[in-house]
Amino acid sequence: MRPSKRNPDQKRVVTMTRNVSKHAEGSCLIKCGDTHVLCIASLEERIPPWLRGQNRGWVTAEYGMLPRATGDRMRREAQAGKQSGRTQEIQRLIGRSLRAVVDLEALGERQITIDCDVLQADGGTRTASITGAWVALNDCIEWMRARGMIAADTKVLKDQVAAISCGIYNGTPVLDLDYLEDSDAETDSNFVMTGKGGIVEIQGTAEGDPFSEDEFAQLMALAKKGIGELVTQQLEAQPQD
Amino acid sequence: MRPSKRNPDQKRVVTMTRNVSKHAEGSCLIKCGDTHVLCIASLEERIPPWLRGQNRGWVTAEYGMLPRATGDRMRREAQAGKQSGRTQEIQRLIGRSLRAVVDLEALGERQITIDCDVLQADGGTRTASITGAWVALNDCIEWMRARGMIAADTKVLKDQVAAISCGIYNGTPVLDLDYLEDSDAETDSNFVMTGKGGIVEIQGTAEGDPFSEDEFAQLMALAKKGIGELVTQQLEAQPQD
Amino acid sequence: MRPSKRNPDQKRVVTMTRNVSKHAEGSCLIKCGDTHVLCIASLEERIPPWLRGQNRGWVTAEYGMLPRATGDRMRREAQAGKQSGRTQEIQRLIGRSLRAVVDLEALGERQITIDCDVLQADGGTRTASITGAWVALNDCIEWMRARGMIAADTKVLKDQVAAISCGIYNGTPVLDLDYLEDSDAETDSNFVMTGKGGIVEIQGTAEGDPFSEDEFAQLMALAKKGIGELVTQQLEAQPQD
Amino acid sequence: MRPSKRNPDQKRVVTMTRNVSKHAEGSCLIKCGDTHVLCIASLEERIPPWLRGQNRGWVTAEYGMLPRATGDRMRREAQAGKQSGRTQEIQRLIGRSLRAVVDLEALGERQITIDCDVLQADGGTRTASITGAWVALNDCIEWMRARGMIAADTKVLKDQVAAISCGIYNGTPVLDLDYLEDSDAETDSNFVMTGKGGIVEIQGTAEGDPFSEDEFAQLMALAKKGIGELVTQQLEAQPQD
Amino acid sequence: MRPSKRNPDQKRVVTMTRNVSKHAEGSCLIKCGDTHVLCIASLEERIPPWLRGQNRGWVTAEYGMLPRATGDRMRREAQAGKQSGRTQEIQRLIGRSLRAVVDLEALGERQITIDCDVLQADGGTRTASITGAWVALNDCIEWMRARGMIAADTKVLKDQVAAISCGIYNGTPVLDLDYLEDSDAETDSNFVMTGKGGIVEIQGTAEGDPFSEDEFAQLMALAKKGIGELVTQQLEAQPQD
Amino acid sequence: MRPSKRNPDQKRVVTMTRNVSKHAEGSCLIKCGDTHVLCIASLEERIPPWLRGQNRGWVTAEYGMLPRATGDRMRREAQAGKQSGRTQEIQRLIGRSLRAVVDLEALGERQITIDCDVLQADGGTRTASITGAWVALNDCIEWMRARGMIAADTKVLKDQVAAISCGIYNGTPVLDLDYLEDSDAETDSNFVMTGKGGIVEIQGTAEGDPFSEDEFAQLMALAKKGIGELVTQQLEAQPQD
Repeated sequence: MRPSKRNPDQKRVVTMTRNVSKHAEGSCLIKCGDTHVLCIASLEERIPPWLRGQNRGWVTAEYGMLPRATGDRMRREAQAGKQSGRTQEIQRLIGRSLRAVVDLEALGERQITIDCDVLQADGGTRTASITGAWVALNDCIEWMRARGMIAADTKVLKDQVAAISCGIYNGTPVLDLDYLEDSDAETDSNFVMTGKGGIVEIQGTAEGDPFSEDEFAQLMALAKKGIGELVTQQLEAQPQD
Repeated sequence: MRPSKRNPDQKRVVTMTRNVSKHAEGSCLIKCGDTHVLCIASLEERIPPWLRGQNRGWVTAEYGMLPRATGDRMRREAQAGKQSGRTQEIQRLIGRSLRAVVDLEALGERQITIDCDVLQADGGTRTASITGAWVALNDCIEWMRARGMIAADTKVLKDQVAAISCGIYNGTPVLDLDYLEDSDAETDSNFVMTGKGGIVEIQGTAEGDPFSEDEFAQLMALAKKGIGELVTQQLEAQPQD
Repeated sequence: MRPSKRNPDQKRVVTMTRNVSKHAEGSCLIKCGDTHVLCIASLEERIPPWLRGQNRGWVTAEYGMLPRATGDRMRREAQAGKQSGRTQEIQRLIGRSLRAVVDLEALGERQITIDCDVLQADGGTRTASITGAWVALNDCIEWMRARGMIAADTKVLKDQVAAISCGIYNGTPVLDLDYLEDSDAETDSNFVMTGKGGIVEIQGTAEGDPFSEDEFAQLMALAKKGIGELVTQQLEAQPQD
Repeated sequence: MRPSKRNPDQKRVVTMTRNVSKHAEGSCLIKCGDTHVLCIASLEERIPPWLRGQNRGWVTAEYGMLPRATGDRMRREAQAGKQSGRTQEIQRLIGRSLRAVVDLEALGERQITIDCDVLQADGGTRTASITGAWVALNDCIEWMRARGMIAADTKVLKDQVAAISCGIYNGTPVLDLDYLEDSDAETDSNFVMTGKGGIVEIQGTAEGDPFSEDEFAQLMALAKKGIGELVTQQLEAQPQD
Repeated sequence: MRPSKRNPDQKRVVTMTRNVSKHAEGSCLIKCGDTHVLCIASLEERIPPWLRGQNRGWVTAEYGMLPRATGDRMRREAQAGKQSGRTQEIQRLIGRSLRAVVDLEALGERQITIDCDVLQADGGTRTASITGAWVALNDCIEWMRARGMIAADTKVLKDQVAAISCGIYNGTPVLDLDYLEDSDAETDSNFVMTGKGGIVEIQGTAEGDPFSEDEFAQLMALAKKGIGELVTQQLEAQPQD
Repeated sequence: MRPSKRNPDQKRVVTMTRNVSKHAEGSCLIKCGDTHVLCIASLEERIPPWLRGQNRGWVTAEYGMLPRATGDRMRREAQAGKQSGRTQEIQRLIGRSLRAVVDLEALGERQITIDCDVLQADGGTRTASITGAWVALNDCIEWMRARGMIAADTKVLKDQVAAISCGIYNGTPVLDLDYLEDSDAETDSNFVMTGKGGIVEIQGTAEGDPFSEDEFAQLMALAKKGIGELVTQQLEAQPQD
């Protein structure tokens, strides 16, 4: 029995609300149960120095947590004077995941930055960030298209991308760990997949004992199911009133 | 005529929603027009080293802005590796303003930190932070009282505190500048006052030409009116559904 | 009775000595009682990047304290690896105050930096810095005029600017707090005014109980008197032997 | 055909030399082809603050690259003033991988740090670091046992751990990518497994197009073969003359 | 002919004024021609952690330059966020030089920090700092003796210490280089010696061509003469009016 | 009797192996007894900004120590976030010493950086770095000559440069201190000399009592002997198998 009473293959209630920022070119507030992440896309007419002259754009991500997003208040990274290794690892993952479905040539010499800021955390913030970030990115690209910056028939996004975690909890493979489950799980794996089911990124970590190939295969099957549901929800997301 | 069509002595529509965080001991989302600030109070059973052994507590504040809270994306302070002078100035102001109405002895040897994070900015973020922070602080203290950490009849908060900005726009003193007005104002003053009308902090700055004593008196009168309305609203704030 | 035996409206003995640096384009050593600040103006033929192409110059300030300027030695900021929030707040105030009386177009595309370094502190270092900085700035501009960089009849400085603190000590409003008084004062306000009496900046803070409008008006009256005396002294300042 | 002329399931020539440091409690120089990593174990009689009073020890890792370990010289991280996100990600991975096979209670209240410094890089530095680090860690524990710090029959290491990368190169799954192959590979996966074949960590990344479940299964099979060879070599490693 | 018209063995006019700080336990303003350094001794009843329990004290130094001490304004180190290599090298040298004549056991478990801040620079700031620092240190120790912290007959300072630079200018060995000479000199050597003529520190650097043993011997002879004069002046230094 | 049983004028066994890096333009692994330093020369087609347009190149050095190069593990500088004063002092010394024998005009507008990384330390790491760095630098220049970047008859290196330490141990001047001797020595001096015997840099420090001119002369005589041997060995260094 999961603490959340969910079935092993049942993910949390997920909502995605678009257009939640007055200023941004694209935005999405994603809630996966009690995990709430604000994903904001910003378009800039400049690219990183190392990309100049290549007729390509860039998509990148930054990640942050409000200090009291968690049960105990954590030190504000701006005050600590640096981003933690965990923060950097996560924002690199979000950026790579998004770029896997972007045609950077089609984007032109521009950069889109997706800021994923966790307002409240209850496990799975990195996977929620990826899922919500794609919605914000998609809206940013449509914003550009509406202004003629991208031609009507140019496909910048090659596919959708979404992510979810799975783990082995009390010996049973389960989908979409919340914080309570995650703290106790023997294994924690994050899966990033496309709308068509291709694998973009896999991160599996044995927290306690090593896991077997068979266990890993069961986790991947759960992830496929969950991500299949998420990509449907991405397309149904509505703007804020 | 103000760009916002408001009368000179009319502040923006303000809403304050309490209890917006699953984890925090007190919280308030304040919206002053399009300026939205999340104010979160965190209680910690520790005090700054320089306060040890004095049988007193401490109340402090931290301030941050999401990178795209503004019209153009700003660099994330955690990535820049330091908080700007502006950020430090604002969080020092919020902390001083709150402490002016707190009986630190009555608090006991504990620290309450109020994190004020700007989700969306349209002028007046520092004054909105102070007004919302008091609501979060008050809820944190009632949370402690409910758990017997503070006696039923102990008054930790001596008064309310709220803040608003005023300025001279096109030659006319006006209340509660939004970003468009602020960019053009000749003078920008922030007033922090208590529920009983005492002055806690005044910061007046001539952006262009110096201002006169008489002009300053008119700004203060506007501020008194606006803060009078805000302290009423603080007491009426409702928790999130 | 003030610890310094001064009358409530009596400021400390102030001396300003010009031309105290072999290298600088303008300089002033200001002594307000035991508070000694070295104000050095440096002209540079470059402007901040965000000002390029606007045919305007810039005036800015930096502030520092020698580690043992105070009663107890403080950590050297260069070794701590950053400037404190207090330091940044003060240098921003000095810069804003000076710019309030500068015609930046008349200056041309150049930057003048005023370094205010406190050699010895006894309260009121920020206001002494502003008063002394104006003298150094004025000499720097005359240095430029003497070399034809500014035309004989171009008015770069629109007015003088000076500053002083006032506070309520033992229930009485008093002028120009020294360290001993400042530590005990109920209220501490800094006033920055022009030679013609216009208000440039007001910063009033209730250290203990909030203060009333009437008390604030008395502080402002004291400040006007004190600044009136300082602007006279600025014009009488003599160069070092 | 691989640029290295190796068969798809053929890893590079690997050598591990133990006892290469005059000072350290355990050390191993691992060479995987032209990738050379110095792995040094240091025992310290102290533990991280958050672990105090739990009767457990800690094993952690740090990772660095000499500036010219790579084809182009990279900036020295000590001079840049911070470790890159990549460096932090790698050292967290090495530490987690080692801890998966350590009985921290059996270690006692001590910390072992494994420094993995890349002298020369040609792809696969993180996996080589893990494989070499286990050898250094094992020697460190035997050093402690020889001095009576660990009882003769206490098993601190529950198993061996080693790592290797696999990828899809020109459409073919291949084992142990070198730099040339890695730059061109469509997919890059790192596998960390124990001596008994349990999975400790999986990191799979699609560099270009997403990959399929079937492709991933082939990579895992290659990894099992390669790691099986590495754990044998770990036990055969000889000390320096 | 030297630009300064001095004879080869003639140092600049040197003055040392003691007791120039209201707060410090010892202080000296040393002027070597146009090089002016404020040397301030601060006594603290604490020692560095690594010295605890050894019944010894510590003497250390910090060095800084006001941004416009030099011909061109240099960036403020507190703003740059770090001390330059040059600054660190110099403050280590000053500290070592002073400790060479201090009996640290006789000092007791206390630390004296000498802050050497260059108000104006014209070459030779590090050697002037050492010479002035000894005077401040001596006064600090007498301040302690007067308060019974050091017994009347305890010798804390074993000797005096002073320093001067020499160099080869236009082929001629000369004493006490000023900035103009230093910029052109072929060789620049700094000598630190005790009152009795013992050598404490020698730093010789060939700026252009290497120098010979014979040349070096001539520089050392000049240094001995100059330092002999300085140690006499140290004892004659008078307090400020 | 020295702990190492060496005669007073006997240096440690020194070996230099060239061509130890697959990527670098020049490299040398120098072993002075148990002190091992990897010296790697990197050629870059860019120069520091302040050197632009002068038709000259630049040679610089960086220095680092692996954390466990020493008896106790030291904190990794990349993690501490800055290079220590000692590190900066040493890398400035290495750079100056090399430049003393380089014709920067003949080098052209290019920069060569010599990274000196200490793999294992037993005293004398800075002098070993200089001696080995010259070998790496020489190979880098010959690499350039072989590719026509420097003409066959252009002399870029005007001479050799090497370094060694001397000190007074138990009252006797001795050559080439190892760590054990260095910890106990009364005096520690580093000498940098050219192949022709010119003095490039002298750094003499009295660790305990001041030393006399005569003692210093004896140290210099030992250094001449040792450096004479080192410059011979530099020319005999062989590439790695």
